[in-house]
Amino acid sequence: MHFAFDDRTEELRARLLAFMDECVHPAERAFHEQAAQVRAAGGWGPPPLLEDLKAEARSRGLWNLFLPGERGAGLTNLQYAPLAEIMGGSPAIAPPATNCAAPDTGNMELLAEFGSERQRAEYLEPLLAGEIRSAFAMTEPEAASSDATNIATSITRDGDEYVVNGRKWYITGAMNPNCRVFVVMGKTDPDAPRHRQQSMVLVPRDTPGLTVRRGMTVFGYDDADHGGHAEVLFEDVRVPVGNLVGEEGGGFAIAQARLGPGRIHHCMRLVGMAERAVELTCRRVLSREAFGGPLARQGVIQDWIAESRVRIEQLRLLVLKTAWLMDTAGNRGAHTEIQAIKIAAPATVEWILDKAIQAHGAAGLSQDYPLAALWAGARALRFADGPDEVHKRSLARRELKRHMG
Amino acid sequence: MHFAFDDRTEELRARLLAFMDECVHPAERAFHEQAAQVRAAGGWGPPPLLEDLKAEARSRGLWNLFLPGERGAGLTNLQYAPLAEIMGGSPAIAPPATNCAAPDTGNMELLAEFGSERQRAEYLEPLLAGEIRSAFAMTEPEAASSDATNIATSITRDGDEYVVNGRKWYITGAMNPNCRVFVVMGKTDPDAPRHRQQSMVLVPRDTPGLTVRRGMTVFGYDDADHGGHAEVLFEDVRVPVGNLVGEEGGGFAIAQARLGPGRIHHCMRLVGMAERAVELTCRRVLSREAFGGPLARQGVIQDWIAESRVRIEQLRLLVLKTAWLMDTAGNRGAHTEIQAIKIAAPATVEWILDKAIQAHGAAGLSQDYPLAALWAGARALRFADGPDEVHKRSLARRELKRHMG
Amino acid sequence: MHFAFDDRTEELRARLLAFMDECVHPAERAFHEQAAQVRAAGGWGPPPLLEDLKAEARSRGLWNLFLPGERGAGLTNLQYAPLAEIMGGSPAIAPPATNCAAPDTGNMELLAEFGSERQRAEYLEPLLAGEIRSAFAMTEPEAASSDATNIATSITRDGDEYVVNGRKWYITGAMNPNCRVFVVMGKTDPDAPRHRQQSMVLVPRDTPGLTVRRGMTVFGYDDADHGGHAEVLFEDVRVPVGNLVGEEGGGFAIAQARLGPGRIHHCMRLVGMAERAVELTCRRVLSREAFGGPLARQGVIQDWIAESRVRIEQLRLLVLKTAWLMDTAGNRGAHTEIQAIKIAAPATVEWILDKAIQAHGAAGLSQDYPLAALWAGARALRFADGPDEVHKRSLARRELKRHMG
Amino acid sequence: MHFAFDDRTEELRARLLAFMDECVHPAERAFHEQAAQVRAAGGWGPPPLLEDLKAEARSRGLWNLFLPGERGAGLTNLQYAPLAEIMGGSPAIAPPATNCAAPDTGNMELLAEFGSERQRAEYLEPLLAGEIRSAFAMTEPEAASSDATNIATSITRDGDEYVVNGRKWYITGAMNPNCRVFVVMGKTDPDAPRHRQQSMVLVPRDTPGLTVRRGMTVFGYDDADHGGHAEVLFEDVRVPVGNLVGEEGGGFAIAQARLGPGRIHHCMRLVGMAERAVELTCRRVLSREAFGGPLARQGVIQDWIAESRVRIEQLRLLVLKTAWLMDTAGNRGAHTEIQAIKIAAPATVEWILDKAIQAHGAAGLSQDYPLAALWAGARALRFADGPDEVHKRSLARRELKRHMG
Repeated sequence: MHFAFDDRTEELRARLLAFMDECVHPAERAFHEQAAQVRAAGGWGPPPLLEDLKAEARSRGLWNLFLPGERGAGLTNLQYAPLAEIMGGSPAIAPPATNCAAPDTGNMELLAEFGSERQRAEYLEPLLAGEIRSAFAMTEPEAASSDATNIATSITRDGDEYVVNGRKWYITGAMNPNCRVFVVMGKTDPDAPRHRQQSMVLVPRDTPGLTVRRGMTVFGYDDADHGGHAEVLFEDVRVPVGNLVGEEGGGFAIAQARLGPGRIHHCMRLVGMAERAVELTCRRVLSREAFGGPLARQGVIQDWIAESRVRIEQLRLLVLKTAWLMDTAGNRGAHTEIQAIKIAAPATVEWILDKAIQAHGAAGLSQDYPLAALWAGARALRFADGPDEVHKRSLARRELKRHMG
Repeated sequence: MHFAFDDRTEELRARLLAFMDECVHPAERAFHEQAAQVRAAGGWGPPPLLEDLKAEARSRGLWNLFLPGERGAGLTNLQYAPLAEIMGGSPAIAPPATNCAAPDTGNMELLAEFGSERQRAEYLEPLLAGEIRSAFAMTEPEAASSDATNIATSITRDGDEYVVNGRKWYITGAMNPNCRVFVVMGKTDPDAPRHRQQSMVLVPRDTPGLTVRRGMTVFGYDDADHGGHAEVLFEDVRVPVGNLVGEEGGGFAIAQARLGPGRIHHCMRLVGMAERAVELTCRRVLSREAFGGPLARQGVIQDWIAESRVRIEQLRLLVLKTAWLMDTAGNRGAHTEIQAIKIAAPATVEWILDKAIQAHGAAGLSQDYPLAALWAGARALRFADGPDEVHKRSLARRELKRHMG
Repeated sequence: MHFAFDDRTEELRARLLAFMDECVHPAERAFHEQAAQVRAAGGWGPPPLLEDLKAEARSRGLWNLFLPGERGAGLTNLQYAPLAEIMGGSPAIAPPATNCAAPDTGNMELLAEFGSERQRAEYLEPLLAGEIRSAFAMTEPEAASSDATNIATSITRDGDEYVVNGRKWYITGAMNPNCRVFVVMGKTDPDAPRHRQQSMVLVPRDTPGLTVRRGMTVFGYDDADHGGHAEVLFEDVRVPVGNLVGEEGGGFAIAQARLGPGRIHHCMRLVGMAERAVELTCRRVLSREAFGGPLARQGVIQDWIAESRVRIEQLRLLVLKTAWLMDTAGNRGAHTEIQAIKIAAPATVEWILDKAIQAHGAAGLSQDYPLAALWAGARALRFADGPDEVHKRSLARRELKRHMG
Repeated sequence: MHFAFDDRTEELRARLLAFMDECVHPAERAFHEQAAQVRAAGGWGPPPLLEDLKAEARSRGLWNLFLPGERGAGLTNLQYAPLAEIMGGSPAIAPPATNCAAPDTGNMELLAEFGSERQRAEYLEPLLAGEIRSAFAMTEPEAASSDATNIATSITRDGDEYVVNGRKWYITGAMNPNCRVFVVMGKTDPDAPRHRQQSMVLVPRDTPGLTVRRGMTVFGYDDADHGGHAEVLFEDVRVPVGNLVGEEGGGFAIAQARLGPGRIHHCMRLVGMAERAVELTCRRVLSREAFGGPLARQGVIQDWIAESRVRIEQLRLLVLKTAWLMDTAGNRGAHTEIQAIKIAAPATVEWILDKAIQAHGAAGLSQDYPLAALWAGARALRFADGPDEVHKRSLARRELKRHMG
């Protein structure tokens, strides 16, 4: 057991930290101003300057870091995790700038692993090149997202085509017109065994019958700069059978395979958000006076800072261990830990962000600091792939099983 | 000691509940749709249908209920509190519909108590009639709002005029063009004793030098329908000396007088928000299925509901007792209790709303339910008139003083 | 609605406060020293000086205050509650000194309401006179105490006798040899409807087959001075049929009737314990120095004091309202509130005591301050008549029912 | 970075686990029964069967595992930590059985590192052999234990002797007559710089003027079986100058050196206690029925189990990382982490134990399960070497310093 990063990780961390300091953080204000202009004009999508950052990141060798194998940077989960943490310090900019943004990351992994040659040529290549975006259409308004057997969207074979009917919502990125393809989860066989009913098909954005209806909000945020979170209708949407990803009935298994790395990424970005929050808080309370001294002297604020540090250190280690387990024992071997970080990370980081907001006063609620938006993001993750409560129930049952006769 | 409302209160409660059921709740969807249209067109202010609701409320004798004395409904704090709770069930609509919305309520009380005859004629009358709106400009970006001695805005006498210079933000309602007058707090004498430095002046919206710069957001919400929360610049703004409210150096005392009732109102509306959240949660979990049964059967959700009920009951009683104390012992006699409800109410109701959101899944985050917006409102109140921590410190010092030699 | 105590209550509060100041608090140290001597000699029971305090209390008209009707002080629940709070400031001494200690209080109410003439003569009279003590034998090691249908103790009619068999534990007071009678709950008819299976019989201490086996501890406390918490065996214990309390099958109903007032008493004593904790904390932190100033200046400690005050004020009001509801609407009308205080009071006061302990350093854990013992008492009450979770579940179900079609 | 134990650790873990399963757990009931008999006879010290366990442990090569270097097992902190965790599963028996119990562990390290040849011969050798016990006398009733500059005990040179005067309390182990020597911290030079005023001397138990006055309790527990927690008086206690440990003025530095490993040990044992609690809880709720099914089906209980698992996993990793840092970067390099685990471990494990107690009902409070006693131990550790709040303050200041200009 030891706790130091390997050389490759350290080298990439240094390179990425330099990119953050030299390019990302200095661009934050302009990014949000441009984004606001785009939005005021009715647009949904990133501000123009993102393209410059992408070019810069690529030239620095900071591109597709998330992707294992030859198509990407070829990192292990344990090597990528600390990079995702660093990106989490500016989560609206760094991930898309390095082509490491959800949901494209998961979609690229999925296409790399399960996509046909044609699917890879048509969608994976431009995604890898950062030319298009994609969406993952699973969540439905009428079904608990944690219970895949509840999915109501149907995918029915009709000759050489699949016909898709259903309503999805909170489909991240889908408001962005450059989001060219939807990976859609639906049921091909409602009578099959519980986890063999679902399949995934690729639906190009311009397919007749597909309507991107409206952007859902998360608290008051529409997250327009990364394509929002859309309600999407599928009404007799027809795609060729060749758009099936993997095999019929394989949808659930593919979704599970997609989850593990996704959670590591989310959780490590959350750790990075927490670090950013602590940093902003320290600076604020050192510079701000009240009642005759800097806020940093207040015992309650010191208590928040210490608790934040203590919680971050524990959380980070568990995420890293989970990454290591995935690398060494596979997703199944890391099942408990993956669930544990899914439970721990959003709640922990939400708490830290709340304290950071409190330390900032009204400014913490506002658009002038990233804290409230980060908070909303962390809070929303308490629902990702099902609410905390479902994950806790499942984890508890596994724990109980260990102690049964 | 007894715990039943008096007859007048019961009669008004029944009347107000009928108005909520017959007029307010049925109008909620249309209200938010109209508000979204106004906003999309770049506007800041209420949707047109609010005027109909105002007319209806007035015809039902539900108007200016908050205002003691002959100008208003003449209710005690204890009589008004349960009405404010009911309004809290639809806090974006019911208060303005009954002309009981902050910050006008506090401003009307202030003008009724401290305003000159001319000030009352010019501003109080149209406010009482619901014809114009007003703002209360105290909070500054560079000063802890809890520490009035930090206020940087200057109000300097120059002949027959006061000259105002300063920057304010989170000035609620100020983006609404019908917000015709600003009650501005600033320093007239920085060398006076600590609580005699401040004064208040009335500044009409169209005074040269006054710039309403931008709407601040609260967790992504701009609250456009009630006039937003503006950043406002005062650059050599000149008003006649007759615009002084009360006397020079009296600003701090007036602000304090304004606080007590305001907190009762806020806190009782929060109680009403919490009741709404519990009601929505119960309906949701009774109708929603997961894992083979209604969510209502889940132990964790039952735990939330029970905890919510237990906390609401305690909180409501403390707010009501505080109202009673203010009526019988005055604001000073209720000092500890006023501070206690300021600490307890936002935190308690924030917790309840968080659980309600969690029970709703992603819908709870969205614009389709009021929960996320209510949460942001409750969270923001943890800063109102200073963060919780300042109030706790002050309350603790009073407690400690009781035990000193 | 108003929040002042009536004259009788104020008069009794003053008298009781004087007794606390003049007699109880000054005797605390000697009480615990004597109790330790008794215990070291292997005894279980109160220290001798308690008799003096009882005589004094009686002479001051502070006797049987808990008991409504002519046999006792004739107070309403709302009148008695603030007196119970005061007693809670010294909960090992004040209740027995005034003959207001559990479980005798509940047993006396039970005998006064349901006892036969002979039962009242034999047991109620000496209990009212403070000459003997009694126990209430309901809880069993093998049954969730919250689920009366699980009770395993059998009470079988055999001619003119009932035969009792079973094992009970945590029978408070039973180690005290002066505890002369046990009110025993068992099943007379396991085939009857769920709430008609149970009956109660009186079992004198010296009945053959009754074995008081050992004192159970609560954390490390054996509570010897109030007779401990015994494990008690009933092996073919025979009592005459005249020892039945009320009617066969009436045990559950009698137990329920006993609960309401008992909870008010417990909860108000808890409020008094919390007040004591705050008082001790304030004195401690004002007098204790660390890092160059009194602890009272530490922000975190001020935060605890303020939170404690805010929570106590809310809790007390809910207990008082519950008492008022019981007086005006009966136990059934106060069902929700009785359950709410059962949930709220132990948890709230446990939190306050924990912070008081923390403010005292190691002394807070020790026998030199009452805090750790009070904490253990509050913690144990989270199980009284069933754990919190059962009460929450029941309360939630009632809340949900209100929202069903 | 990787997360597997090395071979030596795995081998020792297996050996220790076998010892726990074959010897320690089977002896638990008898241990506590014997201990109760010893105590009832007025004794303070371990039950006789401990000697058998010590012999057995020694024969299995499980002896002095904590001690680095040739005198002990020569393990690194990272190697010993997982062994300490295992011992924590039975913390009253396993540590003394393997001669790895505090405070002897710290005292042996101290003597090994700073002791003179004579001191090592006289005290270290018999301690290593498990023949005698020792105490560490630092904490004083009148000084915040976290603030060494407040220590009131004086150590004054008088010719060839030091004269010790002062009062200590919560001196663990000191009630045991076989505790032969006290390591006493006092001030030799109150005028020296703040951290050079203190020295340590060895005081044999039978030195005139040393009075072991009484056992202090921790939530009612006197912990007699490991020698209790004594109040100790030093009145003109004279020891030869050769009893000085290290140099005059070196007391603070020695105490600091003693702290690091001690905290690792405490924290890892706490992790083991938490694992034990989860195990007992799972077994209990699987076997216990209420309301028509095993408790294990209750959602709230599943929530506790899941939360416990999630917190344990995070906590353990931070303790292990701290051990690794101490091994690789020294105590100073691990300063933040040592403080972080001191803050995190007792609070986390206290929470887990509280839930385990709640899941056990009244049994959880009793002497029939170890949970309440473990809880009291964890709670007490929130004060060890100063309360949490002092550690948080210090940690926060270091965090703030990183962000200063």
